[in-house]
Amino acid sequence: MINYPNGKKAKKVVPEEKISTRKNFNAANRGMALENDLNLSNEYYRDANLAIITKRPTPIKVVKVDYTNGPKIIEAFFEKQSTTDYNGVYKGRYIDFEAKSVAGKTRFPLANITSYQFKHLEEVIAHGGIAFFIIEFRGHDEVYLLDAKILLDAYYEKKKSLTYEEIKEKGFLVPRLLSPRLDYLPIVNTLYFTE
Amino acid sequence: MINYPNGKKAKKVVPEEKISTRKNFNAANRGMALENDLNLSNEYYRDANLAIITKRPTPIKVVKVDYTNGPKIIEAFFEKQSTTDYNGVYKGRYIDFEAKSVAGKTRFPLANITSYQFKHLEEVIAHGGIAFFIIEFRGHDEVYLLDAKILLDAYYEKKKSLTYEEIKEKGFLVPRLLSPRLDYLPIVNTLYFTE
Repeated sequence: MINYPNGKKAKKVVPEEKISTRKNFNAANRGMALENDLNLSNEYYRDANLAIITKRPTPIKVVKVDYTNGPKIIEAFFEKQSTTDYNGVYKGRYIDFEAKSVAGKTRFPLANITSYQFKHLEEVIAHGGIAFFIIEFRGHDEVYLLDAKILLDAYYEKKKSLTYEEIKEKGFLVPRLLSPRLDYLPIVNTLYFTE
Repeated sequence: MINYPNGKKAKKVVPEEKISTRKNFNAANRGMALENDLNLSNEYYRDANLAIITKRPTPIKVVKVDYTNGPKIIEAFFEKQSTTDYNGVYKGRYIDFEAKSVAGKTRFPLANITSYQFKHLEEVIAHGGIAFFIIEFRGHDEVYLLDAKILLDAYYEKKKSLTYEEIKEKGFLVPRLLSPRLDYLPIVNTLYFTE
């Protein structure tokens, strides 16, 4: 889940009526635009027969279900994704990535990634999979693909963040097109398939 | 989601009190035992550094969220998984499978698998991924691994089901161990990695 919803943010958007509909819930979530662009790009790749990459659903802990008219969940909570948002197959190989959108212009705080996600991507690499991050700087209207090892190194060096300049230097700018909206697959191809 | 919950089944289990807790919800779902065994087996494989295979969360359509005390979902609905339950990486390659549990002893009805899931697994194969089914016959207390192509062929031949004997013949019995509970990875290794 990009920019996982939290109480504070949502309250800003729906201050009076505390009960939000799906629409408000989405609007509250600025990172949803990145998620939407990636989902559309993945649909494009699927239709063009290039790769099968899917988004993992947001994990939700179901507490109460009303079965009166078919199952309707009446109490549930969002859970943190313990792995990453996206995975799939490209040229037989396993691909796994996390997408994050930040509002600021100067740095990407590592606190955006959980320790579970770092561990998961590290294991993916250990098993021969391809692991990276898609990072959007909304302040620059730019999206970068960054190999997971770069953020993993920063994580183990206990850095608090990577600067925009570091990501610009070590990452790859993802072209925004009409379709696919974020054309990251050619970068994956260059980075991981030309040995 | 194994044996996706539906109104009818659930009503049998919770006839008087129409509102069920998580506990009843699980108990209503006989296939959950298979899911649980697979999740534990995948944890074992992860800890043993053999493979990273995760379960996709059940997709849930969130309609209303109450933000009074942090986000609490108060109206939501189960959605059908448009892909499969499990995917991951083994020796660099992409693995994707669907797990199903049937109560009967004689046949596996293809209606257990959606056309989206057949399409998804077909695409996975086309992109060089490994695709199979894990099928439990509870009446026999047996679990089989069946290459996806076998069920895909039956699907395109418009068969209504595969018999227990066909699955016994064309599939591979998954050993039930103490740990991992369902040791399917050696079968994957033999079937897809010895060329």
